[in-house]
Amino acid sequence: MDPAENEPTPMENKETDSYSMLEPRMKRVYAAFYKELYRTPERRALDPKVQELISVAVSLAVRCEGCLDGHLKKAIALGATREEISETLSISAAISAAAVVDLSDKAARRLGLRLFSTTEKQD
Amino acid sequence: MDPAENEPTPMENKETDSYSMLEPRMKRVYAAFYKELYRTPERRALDPKVQELISVAVSLAVRCEGCLDGHLKKAIALGATREEISETLSISAAISAAAVVDLSDKAARRLGLRLFSTTEKQD
Amino acid sequence: MDPAENEPTPMENKETDSYSMLEPRMKRVYAAFYKELYRTPERRALDPKVQELISVAVSLAVRCEGCLDGHLKKAIALGATREEISETLSISAAISAAAVVDLSDKAARRLGLRLFSTTEKQD
Amino acid sequence: MDPAENEPTPMENKETDSYSMLEPRMKRVYAAFYKELYRTPERRALDPKVQELISVAVSLAVRCEGCLDGHLKKAIALGATREEISETLSISAAISAAAVVDLSDKAARRLGLRLFSTTEKQD
Amino acid sequence: MDPAENEPTPMENKETDSYSMLEPRMKRVYAAFYKELYRTPERRALDPKVQELISVAVSLAVRCEGCLDGHLKKAIALGATREEISETLSISAAISAAAVVDLSDKAARRLGLRLFSTTEKQD
Amino acid sequence: MDPAENEPTPMENKETDSYSMLEPRMKRVYAAFYKELYRTPERRALDPKVQELISVAVSLAVRCEGCLDGHLKKAIALGATREEISETLSISAAISAAAVVDLSDKAARRLGLRLFSTTEKQD
Repeated sequence: MDPAENEPTPMENKETDSYSMLEPRMKRVYAAFYKELYRTPERRALDPKVQELISVAVSLAVRCEGCLDGHLKKAIALGATREEISETLSISAAISAAAVVDLSDKAARRLGLRLFSTTEKQD
Repeated sequence: MDPAENEPTPMENKETDSYSMLEPRMKRVYAAFYKELYRTPERRALDPKVQELISVAVSLAVRCEGCLDGHLKKAIALGATREEISETLSISAAISAAAVVDLSDKAARRLGLRLFSTTEKQD
Repeated sequence: MDPAENEPTPMENKETDSYSMLEPRMKRVYAAFYKELYRTPERRALDPKVQELISVAVSLAVRCEGCLDGHLKKAIALGATREEISETLSISAAISAAAVVDLSDKAARRLGLRLFSTTEKQD
Repeated sequence: MDPAENEPTPMENKETDSYSMLEPRMKRVYAAFYKELYRTPERRALDPKVQELISVAVSLAVRCEGCLDGHLKKAIALGATREEISETLSISAAISAAAVVDLSDKAARRLGLRLFSTTEKQD
Repeated sequence: MDPAENEPTPMENKETDSYSMLEPRMKRVYAAFYKELYRTPERRALDPKVQELISVAVSLAVRCEGCLDGHLKKAIALGATREEISETLSISAAISAAAVVDLSDKAARRLGLRLFSTTEKQD
Repeated sequence: MDPAENEPTPMENKETDSYSMLEPRMKRVYAAFYKELYRTPERRALDPKVQELISVAVSLAVRCEGCLDGHLKKAIALGATREEISETLSISAAISAAAVVDLSDKAARRLGLRLFSTTEKQD
């Protein structure tokens, strides 16, 4: 049995002072999105552990400490190994760096710059 | 056989004007990180398709169009279904929203604010 | 009378160790921008409370805890209701999520992908 | 009568190829959040124009071009003046800059640095 | 003579449709900040080329294409070599990745996780 | 002699619980990038102090507290003056604000909006 199915929604399992700035009506639609995404075993396409690893990677990228703690704990509870977590973290770091390189390539094209040839050898 | 194993590294399969602002010596260490992460079937912990889905989610979160196109194509080539891509995208959106809610909760704690009780009913 | 008019500029009302890395000449031009924006009742177009709610929404989106605390307190001092704060927070979260969805739509167009038809029914 | 009340939801008024990576079930919960937030005149606390200005400010801060275009057009349709848009944009820019200054102040406190006294005169 | 001294402010040298959403009064205070920062040879502490390289690095990190193009052109006009630009870009990418690793370390401390020992050998 | 040459790599000089979520094999490639970038006096193009100032500016922009503390300390150890740090911080703040203005200009062009003429006088 998938332990995630028995997990409370984000709304329920946080300390009691969570979502304290959200009106009940907004909490409801926010929770509905989360529930459809993470807690619908009958419709879900991704493995719960994979969902949690994706959540960890994005939490790191968008600097959400609360999200990171929660999804890291769930990923581990669902059996994520330390090597899987290391790769997840590494992908988040790699894409964050790649975003900078990608933007530099686009600027090079816009400006007609070609500082280094791709076949060039150096050193 | 895993199709990803036959894929070129990011360095090789991009159009010829990529990484044109990176010196060969920096390209080498950058490519080494990517190769260790994505192209080491003998050491890799995560399934290649899962790696690509995580990459798609982070590309969306950090606004990297070049990364997004590349990893989306690889994910699909590795068999990712449209439902898996939909969930990946939804997780990226959900955590991006949750980061805002999480920060508001921390502010509420710092300032001693409790605008809405978690048990309160409304409407 | 608008209480905001009697408020000190950001420069004055922070604890004494604020802006400690900014030279006086840079502080001056930085403070001038803030003063023109927030403290010119004779030229200002937006209601002070609305200015503070916009400031709260952006503080959440860019992860600025100091900004968030300051503008949240001012918004409340200017009469913002808890429902108005809840909507402000919800907009900040919604747009943060929408940014991810928008980027996925652009990628779909670039790559000629159409994973789900907009008229399709499912479930 | 408020023109916004007759506006379609984000789901309806976008070109037909929008949300093409979201499954119908995820679209539904995503649209429900948007509808509760922007299209509930009977429960909404903020003026529709103010909602759109907040949306514009956040769209700028999180780099969402599609969101920006949509909410800018709605803000103008709802009567936002050019001066109100200028202030909205200025707040988004100001808080983005303030986030950097705020982080430097926190670092100064952590490291016990006090590079410039707040009462110091210079030039 | 330093060519940067003869450069127009950002306000002057952009195509004529720039800053079209900023009121003259906000443009003035915005331009004053830029002028004090980039165009005060008598008070400036950093070399103009170094200022431009820092500007390029931050433009990449915050995804500002217009800023990137402008500051890249100025850096090159001020004599920045391709190796200096490569290092600037590499630093921007490296810190973007390091931010993810740093956040993971903080989470590990908060949660009492120690997945890998720093002295551990593997492979 | 350049003091930076005697500095440990990021891997060595952090408290012992750093990089605790990264596998040794990923740490190695990550450290190799850092070493090539910051610790190769024979190949490095930028002055070590300039490298550290660029690192400080990007750390502020991407909200990395650990990076900020480390690079700020190194910049000061390498002789960065308080005025140089003030300018570095000011550039990071200025570009963060400029990114918002740049995006508004692009939207104005896409939508054919021209709210304020660049030659217009006001007040």
